[in-house]
Amino acid sequence: MRELAIVGIGQTPVSENWGQSIREIAGEAILYALEDAGLDSTDGLFIGNMLSGILSKQESLGALLADWIGLKHTEAVKIEAACGSGAAALRMAIMAVGSGELDSAIAAGVEKMTETKGTETTAALATAADADYEIIHGLSFVGINALVMQRYLFEYGWKHTDFAPFSINAHANAMHNPYARLHEVITEKDYKKSRMISDPINLLDASPIGDGAAAVVVVPVEELHPRLSASGRDHRPIITIAGSALATDTLAVHSRSDPLWLTAAEKSARLAYAQAGVAPEDIDLFEVHDAFSIMSALSLEACGFAERGQGPRLGLEGMITPKGRIPISTRGGLKARGHPVGATGIYQIVEVVQQLRGEAAGTQVDGARVGMAQNIGGSGATIATHILKALR
Amino acid sequence: MRELAIVGIGQTPVSENWGQSIREIAGEAILYALEDAGLDSTDGLFIGNMLSGILSKQESLGALLADWIGLKHTEAVKIEAACGSGAAALRMAIMAVGSGELDSAIAAGVEKMTETKGTETTAALATAADADYEIIHGLSFVGINALVMQRYLFEYGWKHTDFAPFSINAHANAMHNPYARLHEVITEKDYKKSRMISDPINLLDASPIGDGAAAVVVVPVEELHPRLSASGRDHRPIITIAGSALATDTLAVHSRSDPLWLTAAEKSARLAYAQAGVAPEDIDLFEVHDAFSIMSALSLEACGFAERGQGPRLGLEGMITPKGRIPISTRGGLKARGHPVGATGIYQIVEVVQQLRGEAAGTQVDGARVGMAQNIGGSGATIATHILKALR
Repeated sequence: MRELAIVGIGQTPVSENWGQSIREIAGEAILYALEDAGLDSTDGLFIGNMLSGILSKQESLGALLADWIGLKHTEAVKIEAACGSGAAALRMAIMAVGSGELDSAIAAGVEKMTETKGTETTAALATAADADYEIIHGLSFVGINALVMQRYLFEYGWKHTDFAPFSINAHANAMHNPYARLHEVITEKDYKKSRMISDPINLLDASPIGDGAAAVVVVPVEELHPRLSASGRDHRPIITIAGSALATDTLAVHSRSDPLWLTAAEKSARLAYAQAGVAPEDIDLFEVHDAFSIMSALSLEACGFAERGQGPRLGLEGMITPKGRIPISTRGGLKARGHPVGATGIYQIVEVVQQLRGEAAGTQVDGARVGMAQNIGGSGATIATHILKALR
Repeated sequence: MRELAIVGIGQTPVSENWGQSIREIAGEAILYALEDAGLDSTDGLFIGNMLSGILSKQESLGALLADWIGLKHTEAVKIEAACGSGAAALRMAIMAVGSGELDSAIAAGVEKMTETKGTETTAALATAADADYEIIHGLSFVGINALVMQRYLFEYGWKHTDFAPFSINAHANAMHNPYARLHEVITEKDYKKSRMISDPINLLDASPIGDGAAAVVVVPVEELHPRLSASGRDHRPIITIAGSALATDTLAVHSRSDPLWLTAAEKSARLAYAQAGVAPEDIDLFEVHDAFSIMSALSLEACGFAERGQGPRLGLEGMITPKGRIPISTRGGLKARGHPVGATGIYQIVEVVQQLRGEAAGTQVDGARVGMAQNIGGSGATIATHILKALR
């Protein structure tokens, strides 16, 4: 497969956006990404989205958006992998352009989920889990994650407050991200007194849903120099896609031999490391899928940044901040940037590109050259890992 | 992109199947395809599906099915392009294996749509059209197609009964297909007295929905000989994917400069012809997307088998039967094999492979060497065209 680069990024603020329809939100992010790339069009459009059919009564998002943004008759489809839909769409764009079948593509993610009733949105999100073996028992999606966290606390002996640094770091970083949903510094005290949602997951362990879209433009590196020169953007580093992999696990958490180990994260990270020729110690920042704080810990462990059961230690030792050993959620993460589910995986990529370009004002990781993003669908069922590198 | 072949096919009978869940239906077809290929597993699973979230309250079909059929930790996602989801999933499998990113993949389609109330299923199908500009006015999906057919009759001066041969041919062919939903020969008299659904579309112009799944296994041709020899299947012709393309059009039919011309069919067919190095006269059979009889006419015209406005003539002149110049719907088509929407595009591919292998008992097209399938999502919004060739 030929080497690829990300030459354009776009995003909309994650918010409660009742003023725009799903096509308007997605169109905005895609047009920003094209503008950032200095391109008018691409050969393909891959849309990550989970809930448009259920919540917006709208499928066929691929064709809808290709038309809406003026990509007449372009190849376009929607990719669904629950909350991992965004990175799954990027995977498809990578294979489409990498194969030579297309010369360029947009991978975008969009979700509109706040305009419906809360119970409706919660029921829709539950379709990410196993309908026949999990949801039928009355579990919600947060309920499943609460069971995992409960077990983690029991197995490894951590206190609930040991997870506070994940949330505190995410909120602090989001203060510097104008696209983040939450702009509110929180303290350990806030975390402790936060309202319980599903024991032991409290409000500050959980990411807020939201409406939003993000998009990136993928082209082959071999075609990059003439394009960039023409657009006057060749002062920016070239951001290559050095590693990309997607793996799955059982949808129902109870079917796993070890419910506290994200095998799909481990596998996809291992493949991505090998492709990129790097190891965990080479990663300068890591956008984790912190839908719930427990997921940050599990991801850090599965990807080799912490020993099994030791994820919370990284937070307690200050290693996850922008100045730490392995900065995570550097633009706010799902926790504070917000979690418009099908869009999240692309927001993460946009944020890694910002870091590698040196455009992450306020939370810039000094000298960031290699960044990683990991997007999770279901409670660890579909996990895609991408590693980007800056060529200066 | 490296050259690819289809080495395994599987399908379940299209039916009203309340006894199996969506995972069981899909799993059956996928396991048949693997068995037919003589393989235990593949590196990827691409699931075409439109309605699982709305009707089965189940998203994450990729991870769900990878686990269900025992493909532990394999890359797996769902692709949605309304009724064109099946062929869109095949496109993704092609790019995944063609790029070298994966060494083999399954493209499958599945839909379970009869266990819900009819009004619920009709509303779900309407998500294929433009929610904000078509459906909001009270149109159903069949209603949109009826407007197109009405206009076609007016513009080109055909009588409604001139469309009877499409339906008669499909029903006759389905008599020989054990997987077809309808096994009932119909006559022109039956067509004339058929119940009106949405004027001028009557019951025999419309395809029946259904529950069903189909799957194909895609591998590189370069790896084919050792695999086939090992499996003892080398007496069969090698079926290559000679052409594959997907194009889109406006989702709302009223936005097209000519609502009677399928530009996305024309574009995707033109690209597929060029890749395969063939022209319409080289195509031995054509599995059209006859969701409604009007769509057969429009597809035949856009793909170069009939002049503009002359599609019905092919039926009236007997050219679409298995012995005719351009056999269509050779195993029953959507009209009589049935239309489990997200699965249909893969059923079409399975049927073309049957023809090219000489396994289409009863409706075998003599000496078939080059077959084409065209799958449509929405009323012409997303159209994928595939051309397969038999190497003997």
